[in-house]
Amino acid sequence: MDSVIKVGIVGYGNLGKGVEAALLNQPDMELVAVFTRRDPNLINLENSSAIVEHYNRVEKYIGIIDTMILCGGSMTDLPEQGPYLAQMFNTVDSFDTHARIPEYFSALDKAAKKARKTSIISVGWDPGLFSLNRMMTEAILPEGETYTFWGKGVSQGHSDAIRRVKGVKAGVQYTIPIEDAIESVRRGENPKLSTREKHYRQCFVVAQEGADLNEIEQEIKKMPNYFADYDTEVIFVTEDELRTNHNKIPHGGFVIRSGRTKQNNHIIEYSLKLESNPEFTASVLVAYARAVYRLYQQGQYGAKTIFDVPPAYLSNLSDEDLRARLL
Amino acid sequence: MDSVIKVGIVGYGNLGKGVEAALLNQPDMELVAVFTRRDPNLINLENSSAIVEHYNRVEKYIGIIDTMILCGGSMTDLPEQGPYLAQMFNTVDSFDTHARIPEYFSALDKAAKKARKTSIISVGWDPGLFSLNRMMTEAILPEGETYTFWGKGVSQGHSDAIRRVKGVKAGVQYTIPIEDAIESVRRGENPKLSTREKHYRQCFVVAQEGADLNEIEQEIKKMPNYFADYDTEVIFVTEDELRTNHNKIPHGGFVIRSGRTKQNNHIIEYSLKLESNPEFTASVLVAYARAVYRLYQQGQYGAKTIFDVPPAYLSNLSDEDLRARLL
Repeated sequence: MDSVIKVGIVGYGNLGKGVEAALLNQPDMELVAVFTRRDPNLINLENSSAIVEHYNRVEKYIGIIDTMILCGGSMTDLPEQGPYLAQMFNTVDSFDTHARIPEYFSALDKAAKKARKTSIISVGWDPGLFSLNRMMTEAILPEGETYTFWGKGVSQGHSDAIRRVKGVKAGVQYTIPIEDAIESVRRGENPKLSTREKHYRQCFVVAQEGADLNEIEQEIKKMPNYFADYDTEVIFVTEDELRTNHNKIPHGGFVIRSGRTKQNNHIIEYSLKLESNPEFTASVLVAYARAVYRLYQQGQYGAKTIFDVPPAYLSNLSDEDLRARLL
Repeated sequence: MDSVIKVGIVGYGNLGKGVEAALLNQPDMELVAVFTRRDPNLINLENSSAIVEHYNRVEKYIGIIDTMILCGGSMTDLPEQGPYLAQMFNTVDSFDTHARIPEYFSALDKAAKKARKTSIISVGWDPGLFSLNRMMTEAILPEGETYTFWGKGVSQGHSDAIRRVKGVKAGVQYTIPIEDAIESVRRGENPKLSTREKHYRQCFVVAQEGADLNEIEQEIKKMPNYFADYDTEVIFVTEDELRTNHNKIPHGGFVIRSGRTKQNNHIIEYSLKLESNPEFTASVLVAYARAVYRLYQQGQYGAKTIFDVPPAYLSNLSDEDLRARLL
């Protein structure tokens, strides 16, 4: 319906590659350029013939790129890149440092409003689709409890933590929701669940030669914040086994609202089972890259979240088609 | 945050009673009046001290009621009441005759635009929340298949059909999704499923004294449109059993998107398990009654669907609170 939306990607890691692939499924969007802080000559795009540019040439694309999809990390990349890029482009990102969302929102809101552009922050599945379900189900069933379970999936932060333990060569950590807890929630029992009762942690660890396995196991299990509050399983594997059996980045989870009206209980469950966390997150970003451009076209400038976006803006179908085909 | 939203209910059947109950959980909304085509003196409200008025006095409430929640049936009530009331009030309804949605939308759009009011049509869970999930997941994962399963739940239309069979005194029909089909979809097998492979139908029937049970069973099972394309089970029960064990109106179902990105599969599943179909539908209507008033306040006149509504409008929390608490 609209003309083609011209898209840029900032950052070409797993997420950026996922965005590149997801754009292939969206006929109304075109990848113009990928921006990197590495040497652009050393990067070969996997799925497109877009230009690879150094990040410090991004300003040359003002007026050329309609929406910039930010694929950097929330720790250090986005807090600096988000407010900078929002001065020049419509942006969409997956900022997920929960405690800093108000501050990040405010920085992008200021930059985008001044530039008369639009930015959607914290898009993905959590924050993102899970947030949307938490919000909508609480509005619909105000009396009740909401439960979020994550997994089974790879936690990058916990995998990194394992790899910092002395004697560990490599490791992957899976967060696994506890089935009994989910079943109790599904039965409408509204249980009070401790951290340990909701998830357990499974670590596949490659030890360095001669390392004390028992010492590694104890150090992981006792690690505060990361593992001490959970039942944690440590499984030693060879480097080959890790490479062969644990080379994917699956994830997923469940948002369950257990609510009540008068004398009746209702369960609303939203669940994701993702073979690739970055590829799925990228697909969500791409749909919201379309939406941010629509908001911008309507003059809705400033920072937005998934809560502010009319769902129809995610689709390239006309309103008539949406009503006829999907309502 | 806003002042109290003044609400009216048109129609006081199961859905209207559900709306009345749901409003008790929404501190920013107040029930002003219930409109009925029966004698208002014969109606005692179950959960409020609102006024009961005859439907033909509705025009007296122009300027008093902010949002009218239409709780009539889609067959004959809404096609007449919707366009009439949209000339005077913001409205929200659960119109669910799929084939007539374009025509109904158009009638309300015309009436509401002329009156500078806003109407949201076809809100509930299907059409409604299920539509929203079909639409959003298709936009996010364009490559894939969407499956909708309904039940286990009571189908009013099929229960009515049973009761029209000669020799039947009373009956309740449950639509039951076939577990094997759901499991195949969840495994990402993208099966092609016939009508018979997706759902089966279970009928609890009270026969009139002296009726031929075998004849009743055959007539139900062979009924075109309703039962012939399904595996159907007919179970004869006493009137007491029907009253005791089948007096609730549960429903629910599943929307599953099985999609693909590059080399990876993803499953998005949305499911509802509702002890009372009308009470839950009413809760959705009430949240969208808040949203329609927000759209109206912004000057977004005309007919809308669930696809057009920014999710934040469903909640009585401020944008800041939503971001801090639920994102």
